[in-house]
Amino acid sequence: MKRLITICAVTLLFAGAASAQEIANFSRGQQVVSPEVYDGGSVTFRLAADYATTVYLSGNWMAQGEGPVAMTKGPGGVWETTVSGLEPEIYTYNFIVDGVAVNDPVNYKVQRDGTRYLNMVFVPGERSAVYNEAAHRGTLTTLWYDSTQLGLNRRMIVYTPYGYENSKKTKYPVLYLLHGGGGDEEAWTSMGRAAQILDNLIERGEAVPMIVVMPNGNPNQQAAQTLGLGTSTINTRDPAYANAYVKSLVTEIIPFIEKRFRVIAKPSARAISGLSMGGGHTLTASQLYPSTFDYICPLSISSQDTPEIRTQLRALKNDGYRLYFVGVGNTDFLYEGAQTLDRILTEEGLQHTFYVSEGGHEWKNWRLYLQTFAKLLFK
Amino acid sequence: MKRLITICAVTLLFAGAASAQEIANFSRGQQVVSPEVYDGGSVTFRLAADYATTVYLSGNWMAQGEGPVAMTKGPGGVWETTVSGLEPEIYTYNFIVDGVAVNDPVNYKVQRDGTRYLNMVFVPGERSAVYNEAAHRGTLTTLWYDSTQLGLNRRMIVYTPYGYENSKKTKYPVLYLLHGGGGDEEAWTSMGRAAQILDNLIERGEAVPMIVVMPNGNPNQQAAQTLGLGTSTINTRDPAYANAYVKSLVTEIIPFIEKRFRVIAKPSARAISGLSMGGGHTLTASQLYPSTFDYICPLSISSQDTPEIRTQLRALKNDGYRLYFVGVGNTDFLYEGAQTLDRILTEEGLQHTFYVSEGGHEWKNWRLYLQTFAKLLFK
Repeated sequence: MKRLITICAVTLLFAGAASAQEIANFSRGQQVVSPEVYDGGSVTFRLAADYATTVYLSGNWMAQGEGPVAMTKGPGGVWETTVSGLEPEIYTYNFIVDGVAVNDPVNYKVQRDGTRYLNMVFVPGERSAVYNEAAHRGTLTTLWYDSTQLGLNRRMIVYTPYGYENSKKTKYPVLYLLHGGGGDEEAWTSMGRAAQILDNLIERGEAVPMIVVMPNGNPNQQAAQTLGLGTSTINTRDPAYANAYVKSLVTEIIPFIEKRFRVIAKPSARAISGLSMGGGHTLTASQLYPSTFDYICPLSISSQDTPEIRTQLRALKNDGYRLYFVGVGNTDFLYEGAQTLDRILTEEGLQHTFYVSEGGHEWKNWRLYLQTFAKLLFK
Repeated sequence: MKRLITICAVTLLFAGAASAQEIANFSRGQQVVSPEVYDGGSVTFRLAADYATTVYLSGNWMAQGEGPVAMTKGPGGVWETTVSGLEPEIYTYNFIVDGVAVNDPVNYKVQRDGTRYLNMVFVPGERSAVYNEAAHRGTLTTLWYDSTQLGLNRRMIVYTPYGYENSKKTKYPVLYLLHGGGGDEEAWTSMGRAAQILDNLIERGEAVPMIVVMPNGNPNQQAAQTLGLGTSTINTRDPAYANAYVKSLVTEIIPFIEKRFRVIAKPSARAISGLSMGGGHTLTASQLYPSTFDYICPLSISSQDTPEIRTQLRALKNDGYRLYFVGVGNTDFLYEGAQTLDRILTEEGLQHTFYVSEGGHEWKNWRLYLQTFAKLLFK
């Protein structure tokens, strides 16, 4: 035992020294707490900036024209403001210090939205409870597949539920979950909290264990721009490549997933959902390949009303499906187009849910839709 | 075909609209290019900030007392400075605008160092070529395992090499790669470029295909702080928990990995390496469990010279190993202690490589050591 303790002491000594040097530049003398979240949806934001002349808070909960909000300088050069009445959700924010947009230096909870990094603040409550880490967590696999059709090696992220590895035989249903314009394969796990939402719903027994596949939906990209990889030279507006991404999804990604993972390979065990551009992909995939998915959940998306689309919807109806869930916010700029989709689905006799929430074209809604429709899948 | 094209046009329309709204707030009217990297290691940094009175550049290549460097305001309110003579490597930097530390708003290449997000700039050359994405890329799996000893469900990242999934039988050797103080399980894949380094070396045939396991080395943590998870109540300074993490590594993580992945489960197919605190873990693991690893690569770490340590080193020598590689920078604050390790290894007759590079206790060295010793493993 003595020997063990001696080595331990040496290790701790090194650890301490290394730590000190490695994190020396993390300390910027700012001892403030920010954000501080209180019961009832009040949040205080603080920034220690004695030198600043003006500090504003910009948050994604502020309606157009409502923000940014001026913060007040207090003792010790600490700027502060308190926001009240935030509903349980995850919000993003930053500061504007003398005209310069700055992240909160004491809040290391950051998410990437396309090419931008934003601080997160979590307001707890029933709606946002599923965004927390569950006790039992699935696995996220970041992997690459070859798309012959798009001429690229492409990245995707795959969620396998807790317990997937405990069996060598159990097969799972699959949700194909697609991001929007400006997003990439990391959008649903970063901003969308998809892993946490599924972990929690599965742990509670509210959703069945499922695999979630999150590909990159930009047809000429290999992966998120942050990787700096080359793009495809295919002109995706060339009619020869019409719906190139959706074709690749159905004829390349699905077979790849069904070979690589233990998957129930039939329509009744396949769901597709996507937001915005990914909602367009969801519509296109379900209309061009009506025998592929029994669960269809386009989010924040509009539809035109054309004879072709109506013909396709009738084919989908005849082919059969189990769930058609349309989610949209009541201030979404695509709300009217989503109403068109609702109307033509009704007129063509396709049973569906038209789920309208407060708010616009934003992640708080997409997270809400995921936690709502995930409970309805594969049941 | 007409039907396909119609749907395509509709999809593009939606995509365009969605894109516009989703990325509207990404555009901040700054049209500058930054950083701009020229041949020969010159880099120009730019920031459009007409309102600013002073702008400084802070970079991790600047020696103490050398920076930050004042930037010059030019036409259109664009601040600029050019740095010359940077050796091929990845560097991190930020701006200081009127006293406020700010990331470069047009550079979305960012890495997280503990609780801090820093912009990256890549200077190409022979040394840094392996940091680029290779043509054939392995898979990164982010998974959770239960540590009974630490009383926690804990996260790790596992790299499996390109081709791992093409066989159901091939077994692989494993490198256990440990982070330093202030780091976490994401440090080696973010700052360390471990996946890219291994992908490139394996693709070139310079390293054998191997699995790389990157656990969280902070014994009371479940995962990176950014996840906001609970910590263990075990007092790791209690003698009953001496070397708790190293014990968990050898007696919990290794069996877990050898069950979950296709692994050659013997000492000749196990390597251990770590930097700083993880270098301490490497020393402790190899000294307390001398029959476990045949490849031992402590980086940027010091050793004491005690009778206990010498006894352990003799036991390790008698037990046998294949590679003992010590890497350290010539200005590292632990350089002297690393020389002690070199000396006692020599005096006790343990064949080893004492690899001294330019520089200090920093990632450019740890990336260099990884690309150096990885070529020597399992051969």
